[in-house]
Amino acid sequence: MSSPNRILVNGRPDGMIDPLDRGLAYGDGVFETIRFVGRMSPLWSRHMQRLQDSCTRLRIPCPEPERLWQEALVVTQGLGQAVVRITMTRGAGERGYALPAAPQPTRVLAAFPAPIRAVDDYRHGLRVRLCETRLAIQPRLAGIKHLNRLEQVLARAEWDDPAIAEGLLCDEAGRVISAVMANLFAVIDGVLITPSLERCGVNGVARAEVQAVREVQVCDLSLGELWQASELFLSSSVHGMLPVRSVDDKVFVPGPVTRALQQHWCELGFPTELA
Amino acid sequence: MSSPNRILVNGRPDGMIDPLDRGLAYGDGVFETIRFVGRMSPLWSRHMQRLQDSCTRLRIPCPEPERLWQEALVVTQGLGQAVVRITMTRGAGERGYALPAAPQPTRVLAAFPAPIRAVDDYRHGLRVRLCETRLAIQPRLAGIKHLNRLEQVLARAEWDDPAIAEGLLCDEAGRVISAVMANLFAVIDGVLITPSLERCGVNGVARAEVQAVREVQVCDLSLGELWQASELFLSSSVHGMLPVRSVDDKVFVPGPVTRALQQHWCELGFPTELA
Repeated sequence: MSSPNRILVNGRPDGMIDPLDRGLAYGDGVFETIRFVGRMSPLWSRHMQRLQDSCTRLRIPCPEPERLWQEALVVTQGLGQAVVRITMTRGAGERGYALPAAPQPTRVLAAFPAPIRAVDDYRHGLRVRLCETRLAIQPRLAGIKHLNRLEQVLARAEWDDPAIAEGLLCDEAGRVISAVMANLFAVIDGVLITPSLERCGVNGVARAEVQAVREVQVCDLSLGELWQASELFLSSSVHGMLPVRSVDDKVFVPGPVTRALQQHWCELGFPTELA
Repeated sequence: MSSPNRILVNGRPDGMIDPLDRGLAYGDGVFETIRFVGRMSPLWSRHMQRLQDSCTRLRIPCPEPERLWQEALVVTQGLGQAVVRITMTRGAGERGYALPAAPQPTRVLAAFPAPIRAVDDYRHGLRVRLCETRLAIQPRLAGIKHLNRLEQVLARAEWDDPAIAEGLLCDEAGRVISAVMANLFAVIDGVLITPSLERCGVNGVARAEVQAVREVQVCDLSLGELWQASELFLSSSVHGMLPVRSVDDKVFVPGPVTRALQQHWCELGFPTELA
């Protein structure tokens, strides 16, 4: 038996990318990273909804979810725990920013073994760094999981200590927005809060799931307010609900809201070692 | 004789891009668009300097200019008037934002016939639209011609009237920064001014050439100040010095500073019909 195809480009197993693809030239596209458990993907519909919304906002034609599902099953074949990255670009185009009259979008599905976090990360939480890199304020792109990710690359490059798992990002005005690779939740005065993503940040699928099952207040949040949190945790469609143990020298302890949402994550069908 | 190779990827004429290239995944790279006149490229050294600076800021290994020059000669072969786009990415990597320990950068050289502008554009100037899209403020990326260009895609998508050639971009705070595809100069009270690019915008090679031959004041500029300009023009390494005839309903007339810089452009070796 031949080894499974872990990458499909426009459905082709040996597919490569045209050097003139606008995804490469301008980051003109969007992506999703989707957790699979065998042939199941508990948040698939939410990912499809966000992909559709993102494509609509950027005027990129969006493929049928059914086709993406079939291709995801191909690339994850034989992987017990997988992450599928779907990348949709506006496709190849002439030189220049103007939108092509008849775009031929490029579709990439790539499967990776799901990254495994230590059980300790879920029990006691992650060590987090407060990043110096600030997120720029750009309401026209805010919320979209688009391919312009240099800010995240710069932020992640701020540390190489493997004991630090994540970075906390503020926007140019100093508001707390998210982690580098995850959204952020805090319990402050007994209220579950997540930062507004109207100006920057990525509208996470795991964040949407939390909002669907708990009352969440979406608001602006300063660092001073964040330090008052009785619980702090990250939401990630790849990693689930991750308590924050510390942000630099500020210490936090996982509490009942975090535990309840970890429990919910297991009930969705994600592996129980994630809580 | 076979037709010339207009694209080289890492020196290979049939080269394609790995679907896992970070240039595609995150826009993790930089580019240059360089005007060629036959086998001559008057601003080549300035492009090489900027490419080196950009790569250094993003910690991407930069290839030797001599190798790029040889490859540029290959892709432009037989083209009298060409534009060469050089794209440098951090190369393929594992999933995730963290920098690869040993990056294998990807190098794309692609040649296009140089776009021709009407002589009237150089004589009387371009019609320009004031864009609604604002440039986000991000000092860590300001000046770099990187691959995160969704703002320019959004701005250019604001109009499809072919009579409008360019868009004027302000930053989130309302300061005038540049055009979508070019830098901006204004003569105000007899002083030649170009907006500061400390917060956003691209540090243009043609802009640097203007700064090398004229006294230029670099400063913040409001729209109110811009409307007082006696001359307004754009600088572009592809198109040279382009007067602005109008920004929406505000009208401008090309003046002596614009004409002198167009003359300088010809003296550099660019075609004389560009003035």
